[in-house]
Amino acid sequence: MTPQPNPDAGAAVKAADRAHVFHSWSAQDLIDPLAVAGAEGSYFWDYDGKRYLDFTSGLVYTNIGYQHPKVVAAIQEQAATMTTFAPAFAIEARSEAARLIAERTPGDLDKIFFTNAGADAVEHAVRMARLHTGRPKVLSAYRSYHGGTQQAINITGDPRRWASDTATNGVVRFWTPFLYRSRFYAETEEQETARALEHLETTIAFEGPGTVAAIILETVPGTAGIMVPPPGYLAGVREICDKYGIVFILDEVMAGFGRTGEWFAADLFGVVPDLLTFAKGVNSGYVPLGGVAISEKIAETFGKRPYPGGLTYSGHPLACAAAVATINVMAEEGVVENARRLGESVVGPALAELAERHPSVGEVRGVGMFWALDLVKNRETREPLVPYNAAGEANAPMAAFAAAAKQHGVWPFVNMNRTHVVPPCTVTEAELKEGLAALDAALTVADEYTA
Amino acid sequence: MTPQPNPDAGAAVKAADRAHVFHSWSAQDLIDPLAVAGAEGSYFWDYDGKRYLDFTSGLVYTNIGYQHPKVVAAIQEQAATMTTFAPAFAIEARSEAARLIAERTPGDLDKIFFTNAGADAVEHAVRMARLHTGRPKVLSAYRSYHGGTQQAINITGDPRRWASDTATNGVVRFWTPFLYRSRFYAETEEQETARALEHLETTIAFEGPGTVAAIILETVPGTAGIMVPPPGYLAGVREICDKYGIVFILDEVMAGFGRTGEWFAADLFGVVPDLLTFAKGVNSGYVPLGGVAISEKIAETFGKRPYPGGLTYSGHPLACAAAVATINVMAEEGVVENARRLGESVVGPALAELAERHPSVGEVRGVGMFWALDLVKNRETREPLVPYNAAGEANAPMAAFAAAAKQHGVWPFVNMNRTHVVPPCTVTEAELKEGLAALDAALTVADEYTA
Repeated sequence: MTPQPNPDAGAAVKAADRAHVFHSWSAQDLIDPLAVAGAEGSYFWDYDGKRYLDFTSGLVYTNIGYQHPKVVAAIQEQAATMTTFAPAFAIEARSEAARLIAERTPGDLDKIFFTNAGADAVEHAVRMARLHTGRPKVLSAYRSYHGGTQQAINITGDPRRWASDTATNGVVRFWTPFLYRSRFYAETEEQETARALEHLETTIAFEGPGTVAAIILETVPGTAGIMVPPPGYLAGVREICDKYGIVFILDEVMAGFGRTGEWFAADLFGVVPDLLTFAKGVNSGYVPLGGVAISEKIAETFGKRPYPGGLTYSGHPLACAAAVATINVMAEEGVVENARRLGESVVGPALAELAERHPSVGEVRGVGMFWALDLVKNRETREPLVPYNAAGEANAPMAAFAAAAKQHGVWPFVNMNRTHVVPPCTVTEAELKEGLAALDAALTVADEYTA
Repeated sequence: MTPQPNPDAGAAVKAADRAHVFHSWSAQDLIDPLAVAGAEGSYFWDYDGKRYLDFTSGLVYTNIGYQHPKVVAAIQEQAATMTTFAPAFAIEARSEAARLIAERTPGDLDKIFFTNAGADAVEHAVRMARLHTGRPKVLSAYRSYHGGTQQAINITGDPRRWASDTATNGVVRFWTPFLYRSRFYAETEEQETARALEHLETTIAFEGPGTVAAIILETVPGTAGIMVPPPGYLAGVREICDKYGIVFILDEVMAGFGRTGEWFAADLFGVVPDLLTFAKGVNSGYVPLGGVAISEKIAETFGKRPYPGGLTYSGHPLACAAAVATINVMAEEGVVENARRLGESVVGPALAELAERHPSVGEVRGVGMFWALDLVKNRETREPLVPYNAAGEANAPMAAFAAAAKQHGVWPFVNMNRTHVVPPCTVTEAELKEGLAALDAALTVADEYTA
């Protein structure tokens, strides 16, 4: 589709937005949202006809790109027959989505509890773990994001938690492996893994193993910086959980459904959690949907005893039909393989090459279509290009980087001192090259802030 | 549409459901979900071709009935152009949905924060109130339901809270007016109102007015029993909130968008809250959507300071397009007026007449298309037909009532000792009469358990 400029329509959309829409994570008077007119594949465009290559996949969720015709058609067909139905019934689209997901989840995670999105998936996973174990505490990572509702945000490590945090929420945060910014003074991946596991086990010892219901981790942490865990770490956490009877929850809301070049990131590591949360990529967010995949053992806990949780739109037919179509499209069109192949052959090498030429690039890391550039003031000291949780003037270098990327036609994902390269998993090699050239230009701007 | 029997297809849907779908609020091995093949208007049907008149509106959310052609068409059109887009942008369907909702919300509740459903709407309303006031506590009603996520379930009064409750969640529950089962030994509505307000104000005094961020109430409590508040109560709560600087949150997830015969139930009482939560009826659940309508004063709190909350699907275009179409259909077709008119002229009188003939009916109460029959063992003692939170054998009288209603072709809403008459707001007089006749038959079964 060729974007047709229509600035008057754009102005009206923007005016109504500013009058009536309250935006997420924002100071409402200080934002200036771009009015977007349309989107297709890896691109979207505004009402002036300016087109952007979307290197964010929305918020890392449109894994099949915008407006995939088969998924659009499936939504239209489901809308024509049964757009909604209450959760207590057996519904074709609901059954089929559960079956297709269970077919792909690791191990015996074969029961699917559907939610509306990732946050409530995490809320319910935590509840299941607490009730299954009868223990109160949850261990989570400082470098993490698990969602915006109260329990999910308490579990989150990043600063978005601070405003809603309370001292008594039963959450204990710990440090996960991240060699480039090691909390363990490690010099090798082996050291980082061993020390991170020792840190976790000692934390459990001092919290009291009998008080810990769950350990929750993003399989590959997303917004926190795409730190692919080093070999042995997740297997080590699995062992610790087994040793102490702790439920292991992997949050794959962002990492799941092709993002890492596997259906689930757990498959990269051969690890099977007890609960796995998903959302986003399950239907590329075409209709809000999330869920928890549940192991046999935990499902059995709620066999004769009611699970005390639920929601009106659990297993929403329209959302499930979009999931069925999305999963089938991903299988038929090799979308997961595309992410793996282009990640290995194009993105990884190209980012490594950018890192060589740009002093602002401290580290490149990632897998599949899930990459981060850790930007620094100085490669020796590894001081981040902007301070942790910077805003306003302190964040100017990252703002300048983002503005330059947009000027060159790429919408970048930016968080703290990082840019993430997270285009749709359907992205083509040509699109990647176009986007990487724009990042190259934007990094030249970031380089100006190095010292 | 005439239901075509297709038992084999139904058996397959059911088998996949039992293999892979984990259901809300259920002991997974003890449920036997009906496989539903289709739905239209006020009816749905199973794979044997048996048709049911839906006296539940799903979970009290399909206010415009199933498969309204104009809303289906709007979903199909939006799917064809822009099914999803991230929340930080201005999007036509998002802007228009916010405008149409703000046009209808009471007072100055003109900023709309979109969520995925009711539970997260309540989560965010509570967060806004806490941050706006800088105070920790929330007061809520024992007779209430506010959603299934952690904060929402803690605020909830009904037993679904128990399994997830903690002692230190900053929630204080109080008693709301309910003359038929008065906690205040009142004999008149005036007494009940005055005493309930005195109880609330004394509770605040003993909790410390400076510690209370919010009072949250369902404008007309829904699943808890459709207790229409007596004259003066909500206005009195508004005054108490103003006196102590407490944020007044009205939860209209179930009561809003026509259910009470008004766009919002607050309009029945001329009361304007500071925050109003909605979901369900906003688009009849055709696509998951909820939200918080925010007063100018509270929106200003987050003018220069970021609101620390958000979600990937906030203002989801497909969900918003469904809301735009639903609100326009409701306006064009007089759906709100239909609910008010048939509530007054048909449902109210018919239920009163049933109450005269059936000793199991203790009280009839309601408004619009939102009615409850409070079933009792004995009209004098008002002992409920089944105990509070009964299950299994103790719940046999209500199970027998429900089975009889289904046998007579009506799917009833049943909660504890009550049945609610909550068909779509688009229901016709003929459909109501059909359904009321079935209830009449089912009440004859309930009568057998009176003494």
